[in-house]
Order: sequence, then structure tokens, then C-alpha cells
Amino acid sequence: MPHHLSGETRLFPIIGDPIIYVQSPDRLTRALAAVGQNGICIPMQVAETDFASVMAGLTRTNNVDGILVTMPHKFTARGSCTTLSSRSALLGVVSVMRRNPDGTWHGDMLDGLAFLKAQKEQGAAFQQARVLLLGAGGAGRAIALALMAEGLRELVIFDSSTEKAAELVALAAEAGAGKILVGSPDPLGFDVICNATPIGMGLGDPLPLDVTFLQPTTFVGDVISGHGETPLLRAARSRGCKTTSGDQMVEAVQTMMLDFLLHR
Amino acid sequence: MPHHLSGETRLFPIIGDPIIYVQSPDRLTRALAAVGQNGICIPMQVAETDFASVMAGLTRTNNVDGILVTMPHKFTARGSCTTLSSRSALLGVVSVMRRNPDGTWHGDMLDGLAFLKAQKEQGAAFQQARVLLLGAGGAGRAIALALMAEGLRELVIFDSSTEKAAELVALAAEAGAGKILVGSPDPLGFDVICNATPIGMGLGDPLPLDVTFLQPTTFVGDVISGHGETPLLRAARSRGCKTTSGDQMVEAVQTMMLDFLLHR
Repeated sequence: MPHHLSGETRLFPIIGDPIIYVQSPDRLTRALAAVGQNGICIPMQVAETDFASVMAGLTRTNNVDGILVTMPHKFTARGSCTTLSSRSALLGVVSVMRRNPDGTWHGDMLDGLAFLKAQKEQGAAFQQARVLLLGAGGAGRAIALALMAEGLRELVIFDSSTEKAAELVALAAEAGAGKILVGSPDPLGFDVICNATPIGMGLGDPLPLDVTFLQPTTFVGDVISGHGETPLLRAARSRGCKTTSGDQMVEAVQTMMLDFLLHR
Repeated sequence: MPHHLSGETRLFPIIGDPIIYVQSPDRLTRALAAVGQNGICIPMQVAETDFASVMAGLTRTNNVDGILVTMPHKFTARGSCTTLSSRSALLGVVSVMRRNPDGTWHGDMLDGLAFLKAQKEQGAAFQQARVLLLGAGGAGRAIALALMAEGLRELVIFDSSTEKAAELVALAAEAGAGKILVGSPDPLGFDVICNATPIGMGLGDPLPLDVTFLQPTTFVGDVISGHGETPLLRAARSRGCKTTSGDQMVEAVQTMMLDFLLHR
């Protein structure tokens, strides 16, 4: 029981389907309390086709100050936002919304930024770095876009679908300058490697790259969270690499969401 | 922080305008926790004209199991219910809703019942009693209807608007048998007196009846809550009467709402 749960409590719903696995109701509510905010993050189980209707109701509920969006609503949510951050507009994806002064919604997408933040906290450096990104899906796209602001020397993108990899190369080139190209998952010579594929979630998954060629000077990050240490990170650590896990990214997302929601 | 706040938490919103004064977010959430339910009562600040839109969104949010309705929505809420209890239908008022098996809403109005429950707990007896009801507004109507199931000998209704008192006499006569009539606020000869007027909320309010004629055998109940002991109850107690306060009614409402929401 929050000591502050009252008629004055402000609401920060998280909308998803399924919703039962999300950690934000507990984590974000604790984070709000820690900064003295009388606010609560509540889970809302909403089917994809009902998103707009639920959003209409939340928009008219005046003590709803912010909304978190998780699968499968991250694309649909864009339609409920009157304004978008440039990265959110480019990706076509929204993961978090807050009110504009007129009560409409401003959307942003923090996952890519949070992943880089977590990596930097563990010692990764991106300035003039050669970066290999594995996976050109939702997570990969967000990370590629966030990387564009980091002053890389080179970004190589690999996806089992060469077409998806090429699309992301084009998207990243729109967002930033520098050498951006489709490549192979060969880890040799990279300063940072980011796994944004789901490989490592399944028991008995292969490794997403050949760790034999992984050098100890390469920093390895993995987006997979809630599955313990992935085989990729275990192999990387045993070869002397510094690493960042998906759980550390989730932690960083929480902090960034709080800052975004409270306009800090 | 509820130890159980998670993606699996069930929602029981309370909708009102203004919402900041309601106590249910704290009280109902504690009550749910006390019976082992992972549920939370959240305040929703919603203007009268936005009620239907917010209800549409909540109906499509699958982990919303029940809804509390407070002013000014108690009349409008009827329109969102597919089924109603008979007292709710007769009063045209809904204070609480739960899901039917098909996901639609069933509405009820528990305020009158809760007031009688609180009075009985303090020793009031209604069988064959002569009851004086002061006030024929929303609270008075709910109490009159609840009294109809108690086997009274006589119900006398007073309101400063004789027309409203007469309307309520007609409504009560629809709901039950017995002697029901419009009368004066003279307390002499009654077994139970219920104040359902707002007199006693304001500093310097007059008493709603002439306490000089109040007998110690008369039980006196007051619907006014959150204002400490009202002048009426203070005068009644000093004359030896047993009493029930609006705060005790609110307490009884909480228990009855929990039973209703959890189908107990």
C-alpha cells in the first residue's frame, strides 16, 4: 500500500497485451515515491483494436499525467500523439507519452537511448567507435537511431534479412552522418557489439555471432532481459569483454521514463 | 507501495469530480489487500460530460473488475449499466458497478443499505418502528428505499420542499407497503430519526430539528461524514440517545462495496 494513495494520486498507466509480465507498475511507482511524487503506475490490459478507445478515456481523465506503451501498441500509439520527438517520428514508434500544456499527448521512444546509457555506465565509448549492430527489428532500429548522435566512425548492421538490414541503413543515414553499411555478424575489429536480436531468449539458442573471434577489447551489450545472463554475455565475459545486459537497459529505461514523465 | 502492485493487479477505479477528497483509493485498496486480493482502487478525475467516454475505455480494459461512482456521475452511470439492482433502477442512481459474465456492467446503489447497517450495528431496531427521515434528496431517497425492506410501522418524510417529500413518499410506496407520509421535523414519538439533509456541514448551521423534544429512547443517525461530530449528534447524545455518524456509514459502505465487487 502506498502511504500516499489517495484522491490526489496522479496516474501513469502502462498499456499492453499481455500486461501481466510488466515490471513498471512496481518499479515506476517506487521511483515516483522516491522523488516525492504522489503517483502510481497501473497496468491496463487492452487488446490492440481497443487502444484508441482506451486512450480517448484516459485523455479525458484529468489526473492521468503520463502513459507507458508496450507491445503490441507501440506503433498504434503514434496516432494518439499530437506531437512526437524526432526519433519517435522517424521510427514511427512511441513507448512513452506525457501531456502537452493543452492536454494533448507528446510521444517519445526511449529504449535505444536507454540501451546506450546503460552501456556507457558499464564503460562503453562510442565516439569514433566501430559498432556492430545485430538485428534490424524494433529494438535494433531504436538503437541504430540513438547511435547516430554518438559520433561513430562506422556502424555495421547485420540482420538475417538483408532487406531489413538495408532498410535500417537507409533510415539511420537519414538521421545522421558517417559510414553506415550492411555487414556480416563477424565480430573482429569492433569496439562495441550490440545484440538486438531475440537470439538467447530460447533454451538451446545458438550464439548470434562466432565468439571465437571476439576480442577482449570489444564491449558487448545484449537487449535480452528477464532471462538471466545470456550465452552471448557469458561467452563475452569469459573472453574478458566488458558487457551490458538487457536488465541493465530496463533499469536505465525506468530512470529515463521518470525524467521524461516529470519533465526533468 | 502495495507489495502486490504488478502487471497482474486488478483495477477498481473511482470516478468523480472533484475526486481529490475521496477516501476509497486508500480504504478499498487496504480492504482488498486484507482479503488477499491483488487489486487497487485508483482515483479518476472526470468531468460530467466525459463520463461516457471514460467508461467506454474502462469497459475495454480487461483488468478493470469494478467501478465506484461518486458525484456528479451517480445518475449518468445508470446509462453505462446493462443490468441494475431493483433499488438502483427505482432510484435511477448507481454508486458501484461490477462485470456481468459477458463483460457488461451491473450497477447497484449501496448508500442507503450501508446507512441502515451502520445504525443496526449501533443498536437501532427497525421492525415495527416509527421512523422520521429528514431530507428527500439523493441520500434521503436511498435511505427511504432501504427502509422499505425493514418492516416499519410508519415512515414520516420531511423536506423543506414539500413537493420533494411528496415525491419520495410516492417512490417509497412503489417499493414497499406500510404507512408512509409527509410530515414535520417534530421528533416526538419516533423510534429512529435519520438526518439525510446537509444541515450540520456548515459552521453555524441550525439544528435540523428541535432537540428539546428529543427522547432518550430515540435512535438518531446522521449521514454527514468528515465533519467530526455534528451538532445534531452532540445534542442527541447529551440527551441520552444512541447515535450513528456519517463516518460509520462510510465505513459500512466500504465493507458492502467490497462484498459487492468480489461477488461475496
